[in-house]
Amino acid sequence: MSYEISEIEGGICAPSGFKASGVSAGLKQNGLKDCALLVSEEAANFAGNYTECKFRAAPVDICIQTEKLRKPVRAVFINSGNANACTGSDGMLNAQKSRKMLSEKLHIAENDILISSTGRIGEQLPMDKISTGIEMTSKSLSQKTNEDFAEAILTTDTRKKECAVEINTPEGSFRIGGTAKGSGMIAPNMKGLHATMLSYITTDADLSYKKLKKTLEKAVERTFNRITVDGDISTNDTVLVLSNGKSGIKIDKGEMLQFFEMGLTAVCQQLAQMIVRDGEGVTKFITLTVNGALNEKEALLCGRKIAESLLCKTAWFGADPNWGRILAAAGNSKAHIEPDKFDMDYGKYPVVRNGIDAGTDEAVLAEIMKKDEFSIKVNLNLGNGQAVLWTNDISYDYVKINAEYKT
Amino acid sequence: MSYEISEIEGGICAPSGFKASGVSAGLKQNGLKDCALLVSEEAANFAGNYTECKFRAAPVDICIQTEKLRKPVRAVFINSGNANACTGSDGMLNAQKSRKMLSEKLHIAENDILISSTGRIGEQLPMDKISTGIEMTSKSLSQKTNEDFAEAILTTDTRKKECAVEINTPEGSFRIGGTAKGSGMIAPNMKGLHATMLSYITTDADLSYKKLKKTLEKAVERTFNRITVDGDISTNDTVLVLSNGKSGIKIDKGEMLQFFEMGLTAVCQQLAQMIVRDGEGVTKFITLTVNGALNEKEALLCGRKIAESLLCKTAWFGADPNWGRILAAAGNSKAHIEPDKFDMDYGKYPVVRNGIDAGTDEAVLAEIMKKDEFSIKVNLNLGNGQAVLWTNDISYDYVKINAEYKT
Repeated sequence: MSYEISEIEGGICAPSGFKASGVSAGLKQNGLKDCALLVSEEAANFAGNYTECKFRAAPVDICIQTEKLRKPVRAVFINSGNANACTGSDGMLNAQKSRKMLSEKLHIAENDILISSTGRIGEQLPMDKISTGIEMTSKSLSQKTNEDFAEAILTTDTRKKECAVEINTPEGSFRIGGTAKGSGMIAPNMKGLHATMLSYITTDADLSYKKLKKTLEKAVERTFNRITVDGDISTNDTVLVLSNGKSGIKIDKGEMLQFFEMGLTAVCQQLAQMIVRDGEGVTKFITLTVNGALNEKEALLCGRKIAESLLCKTAWFGADPNWGRILAAAGNSKAHIEPDKFDMDYGKYPVVRNGIDAGTDEAVLAEIMKKDEFSIKVNLNLGNGQAVLWTNDISYDYVKINAEYKT
Repeated sequence: MSYEISEIEGGICAPSGFKASGVSAGLKQNGLKDCALLVSEEAANFAGNYTECKFRAAPVDICIQTEKLRKPVRAVFINSGNANACTGSDGMLNAQKSRKMLSEKLHIAENDILISSTGRIGEQLPMDKISTGIEMTSKSLSQKTNEDFAEAILTTDTRKKECAVEINTPEGSFRIGGTAKGSGMIAPNMKGLHATMLSYITTDADLSYKKLKKTLEKAVERTFNRITVDGDISTNDTVLVLSNGKSGIKIDKGEMLQFFEMGLTAVCQQLAQMIVRDGEGVTKFITLTVNGALNEKEALLCGRKIAESLLCKTAWFGADPNWGRILAAAGNSKAHIEPDKFDMDYGKYPVVRNGIDAGTDEAVLAEIMKKDEFSIKVNLNLGNGQAVLWTNDISYDYVKINAEYKT
């Protein structure tokens, strides 16, 4: 019997032993869900990846401190509508108070509970509503309400983002499920996660903290770190993975570890792409591949400059083949580039060869760019470094959403 | 008698011995002016500051090569409507051919002529139209047509940008005049000029190449390098300063040099601010000051992250006091920041003290941000590093202009 990965339903509740809930406690307007709770029946190892913004929100600090204890956890509580960031010592006290209330309600030790917040920066948490949220989420936990959880963590997102996979192995099967939020303030960064996003991933496989941490870092680097919506970075970015071992499958090395990594990467990639597709005001989804860089790092440097260029993004919105903007952006990256070796393709059509117009009719190129999804391939023709990034356009609606966003 | 700087009319023709012209030769549509010529009666020392984009346009290469000869020049020809960038060896041949045609028409050696282009990237220059432009500009040179020149170098700009100063000294007076174009693809960069812009500066003071180069670099660093519209960088950026010595005033050291620097910086600053005010779709002009950084470089790192943040820029467009976005942007810069020492003011109102809300009523802050111009002051409270930047908002119209821009 061989290994096999297949997509399944159920999001973060797909793996055994996880329950979730999502409710409306009044932090957001119009009765939208704004508090979410995830509980593992049994103690789960966990690892996280956090924003490197110097103004880190209080709940992120709590996750980081908790991870340092190197001990399993049981629950994660999230509120949307308020980021509890730039809130000083009162913000930290409120975060700790939330955890204490959860501890009493769930009969779980405080250090076994993680918390996250997302929403507007700089306002103190409305603790009465948080208290209501804790009360309500604790009561509505179930294995079937993964969608409520997925909904409650959203802010400017227009839709839920969740997925799950089952991995069959010669020793039995295990599952990985995940959900994410994020549609603006999204940017990749090489030194860890840098995107305004929250993502929670569950697995019933059994991994040590070290293995979990390492595989998460690898997966994040190739997925969440390869997307960009607006190049901005948040105070609250958090990805957490919890492993409760309920499947009885131990992941340690060899093919088993390899397939766990593949499954985790698949889940992260799918969530990352969902974030790009749901980017604020997005009308196009673009897969950008940089080949032929001196190394992978340089391929990324080049790709990020293109993916974050406002002039490229507005040209894509206008379905304008204006390839000069892409060259200008690439030429301003720190990657080594020899202009007369630079090639570029839109879809299957050559656009630039040796740094100049490849001669394809502009009308043909414009047709490609009118599609909802297209690919741009750049080849620096200098080495073997490659990177794939997923990005999108910037439309009127991006400006509208961000000029008017107030929680 | 003491030194005195006063503003005067006349743009690049204000200093003695310079003639200019601007005509329509059909490179742009609707009969807009698109070819400009500047001629100095006598040989003029010149220094330049150029884009560091790896895809440098052919005319920029010609300026750089000419500057290396360390010899005076007599003329500068500019076309708008076509950037002659990413045009390979044919582009270089066309640039050289333009210079040859000018040389024959003006009876000036080829090496004494500089050229610039601005417009869409990737298309070959229409040499018949360039030829017409050379013919027409040569015939219409005068000391009174500085405005035609200023108009002919524009692309997406909505208005001419020019200014001039006269500096009275105990030994007599000299003048400095300048004009610029640029309204998008504007970003500052520490290692030289990085803004989609062209600027031509004339003076009838007498400076050696070395002095001219050094004072230009200093002035650019504090002016053109302190503005940002969209964070993008062009293939064609060029600033040139020509000194023909016609005033008889020699600038070498002491107070005389100091006042020349002040005059040049004043001209560059005024042109730089005009570019920001005329930024594509701009509705707000923002003066951003960062104080208290460890040093000037760190103050700039912090300021640029804020000035280039799409989320900050869209919040400004929406007159949204959302200060959390500014902190998030600052916190993602490479500058040292201690969150609990961070202070910020909008105009005269405290917004953030010690990293948290200073308590000023949001309605008061929103009133400030509804103005066409306002100031944001950040204090890191760590050292004496200071930097002032000029920036703007990103509106629907920025997206519209850049989604639809085709020459």
